[in-house]
Amino acid sequence: MANILLRSVLFKGVKRDILIQGNKFAKIGEGISADDYPNAEVVDCENFAIVPAFYNGHCHAAMTLLRGYADDMPLMKWLQEYIWPFEAKMQPRDIEIGTRLAILEMIKSGTVFFSDMYWHREQTIKVVEEMGIRATIGVTIAENIDTPERIEENFRFLSGGHGSERVKIAPMPHAIYTVGEKLFRRCAETARSEGMILHTHLSETQTEVADCLKTYGCTPVELLDRWGVLGCNFVGAHCVHLSDNDMALMAKSGSTAILNLCSNLKLGSGIPQITKMMESGIRLGLGTDGASSNNNLDMHEEMKLASLLAKADGRAEALTADEAVGMATANVAQAYGFNAGVIAEGYLADALLVDLKNERLVPNHNFISNWVYAADSSSVDSVICNGRFVMRGRHIDGEEEIMLEAEKCAKRLAGKS
Amino acid sequence: MANILLRSVLFKGVKRDILIQGNKFAKIGEGISADDYPNAEVVDCENFAIVPAFYNGHCHAAMTLLRGYADDMPLMKWLQEYIWPFEAKMQPRDIEIGTRLAILEMIKSGTVFFSDMYWHREQTIKVVEEMGIRATIGVTIAENIDTPERIEENFRFLSGGHGSERVKIAPMPHAIYTVGEKLFRRCAETARSEGMILHTHLSETQTEVADCLKTYGCTPVELLDRWGVLGCNFVGAHCVHLSDNDMALMAKSGSTAILNLCSNLKLGSGIPQITKMMESGIRLGLGTDGASSNNNLDMHEEMKLASLLAKADGRAEALTADEAVGMATANVAQAYGFNAGVIAEGYLADALLVDLKNERLVPNHNFISNWVYAADSSSVDSVICNGRFVMRGRHIDGEEEIMLEAEKCAKRLAGKS
Repeated sequence: MANILLRSVLFKGVKRDILIQGNKFAKIGEGISADDYPNAEVVDCENFAIVPAFYNGHCHAAMTLLRGYADDMPLMKWLQEYIWPFEAKMQPRDIEIGTRLAILEMIKSGTVFFSDMYWHREQTIKVVEEMGIRATIGVTIAENIDTPERIEENFRFLSGGHGSERVKIAPMPHAIYTVGEKLFRRCAETARSEGMILHTHLSETQTEVADCLKTYGCTPVELLDRWGVLGCNFVGAHCVHLSDNDMALMAKSGSTAILNLCSNLKLGSGIPQITKMMESGIRLGLGTDGASSNNNLDMHEEMKLASLLAKADGRAEALTADEAVGMATANVAQAYGFNAGVIAEGYLADALLVDLKNERLVPNHNFISNWVYAADSSSVDSVICNGRFVMRGRHIDGEEEIMLEAEKCAKRLAGKS
Repeated sequence: MANILLRSVLFKGVKRDILIQGNKFAKIGEGISADDYPNAEVVDCENFAIVPAFYNGHCHAAMTLLRGYADDMPLMKWLQEYIWPFEAKMQPRDIEIGTRLAILEMIKSGTVFFSDMYWHREQTIKVVEEMGIRATIGVTIAENIDTPERIEENFRFLSGGHGSERVKIAPMPHAIYTVGEKLFRRCAETARSEGMILHTHLSETQTEVADCLKTYGCTPVELLDRWGVLGCNFVGAHCVHLSDNDMALMAKSGSTAILNLCSNLKLGSGIPQITKMMESGIRLGLGTDGASSNNNLDMHEEMKLASLLAKADGRAEALTADEAVGMATANVAQAYGFNAGVIAEGYLADALLVDLKNERLVPNHNFISNWVYAADSSSVDSVICNGRFVMRGRHIDGEEEIMLEAEKCAKRLAGKS
């Protein structure tokens, strides 16, 4: 793998040279000589700042084909009349096309990792490998949909040694209302024995919590605690409605909560108690959810929204720009077991080159404040993942074809062609 | 003024030809022949959709020089230790430079109108005229700052016949806690006699409302009603904390409320009751506030945020995409007395050409949903104001110089050069 020397890039407020060797940051300093690294491509970064690339903690990538298919309606109408009938028609080839569109959008907005809970994982893995980014791909399990044979096949897949340098596999039981105790426990045991993450939807709506209290006499988080699922390898998506005890249980067990603020607002699920969750000690990361309920995969929007919503209770000093960056990068990387999300020697070389000549980054009193509160995706010039450029000068090879194919596929699935 | 024929543009879900003559939309239909309009420039819009351009209902444009200068701190510390000392150093030439940067950013993100409450209005007017957009420029009045002579000069300016085709003037008393009854009444009388809008900050924080109740025994809105200020030409900015009676008074009087959702969250002022305000019948528009508390001037962000926050109370069907567009365009245009914000024959020709090949607008199941919920500024290809292109292909003449000058100016004011 070729080496890269980023020359004179703005890094934490000062100009630095950054050497990438293989897939890692090897050296950060002043006056690193290109002569000492004759194999390195020297990139002039005089007009760029470097920031950690985004890690998207919860997504359903192929649902990008459903972007804008149904909006502004109650949850059950949305699911039953629009989303489920559309999804029922999706074949493996459609998943591939939808995931390719999703990853195109992710790269364009600076994301190099996503956690994916969906169907036809083989196609998703293939596209991630092909497009050069990272992912944790779920083996999704839902007892209301899967046959017993399918479930056994899922566990065989989990123990089959799949995954690669950039792709990890994980059991993803859908939620406590679609997966029972026995199967959840089996997922948790498999995850631990295989050294995997376990990811599930958790306490997304008030209805979910109320139903759980009625059925089990405890909250969803308490239920997972009782079932032995919480722990350092546990990542729960949403966590909109947590009690004080829920927060304590998640924090104590080393669990992670992934907030999907835009999706939760758009579907009318509510706003999590962000500052209280931070104070509880839970590791907090951010995700976009699927594009059918967001309706994009833009982690920058989530990052700004997290900081804004944390301040909604009246404290402008809540969730600073630096903390918001951490939630959108390092916290998610750590939760999913990647030595990444931080630009420092020895870490995986994932990063964004941000265009300092973008009008939103002027004046540059404080770059991180500008990055979080003023920028949007238009300032992401180049994206590096695993020591390689996956976008340069906002161009990605084949992007027109990806969009054309996705448009055709989505029209067909919607019954319009 | 040259004419423009937009050929085959996506308009409300169908392909149309749109003829602009002078500064107005003259004809919208199918198969409009270029031969019939030999003076018109024909623009191929096969890959574009047309949407109304944004109208920013509340701004302090030159404060863009303070972008990122101080964040994540309590309001009074922010004002006293950072904002006010910086502003005290700003000279007329700085206002010009800051406003130019602000308008550059506005055009890049699709805004063609802003309402501006700041100092040195002559410089602001000059830059608006020069850059080709529209504005209502405030004659700002604050008794805690202005001398009696300055106040008299302000009223002479208001009656001086200033303004032009694209620029209107308006009295803008700062707020009920900086301007007393006598002066507020005089502003209201002047506005009515001169046919002007009256714009002020209103019920932005709980402290403002509590102090008003203590001093006057009524809310800020009730106070303005008592002083005879409310009415069809009244536009209040913020309106975060309105009582039921406040809403009824504003609705009955034909007043407009401009929400500045991003700024209100960022400064910890809170979230207005959007759906309740809509139901009350108040005309609702959106604004960005200044870049020191937002930290950009992106009306698209405000539009999406309005729809999301309206749904926070649990109704996903609250504030639809179409309604959100109206709040960011037509409602503001109407409030400020412009026959604009709608793409229809006879209206002022302000519009955006949106790039349908932007990855966020694929697939195109529903363009307006994509525009509101999925797009960001990167999809705004061209901007038309008053029948003329002010941006084409994302390029604006002189943008590099505007940014360089602003960077230098901001550094000097911050004492760093």
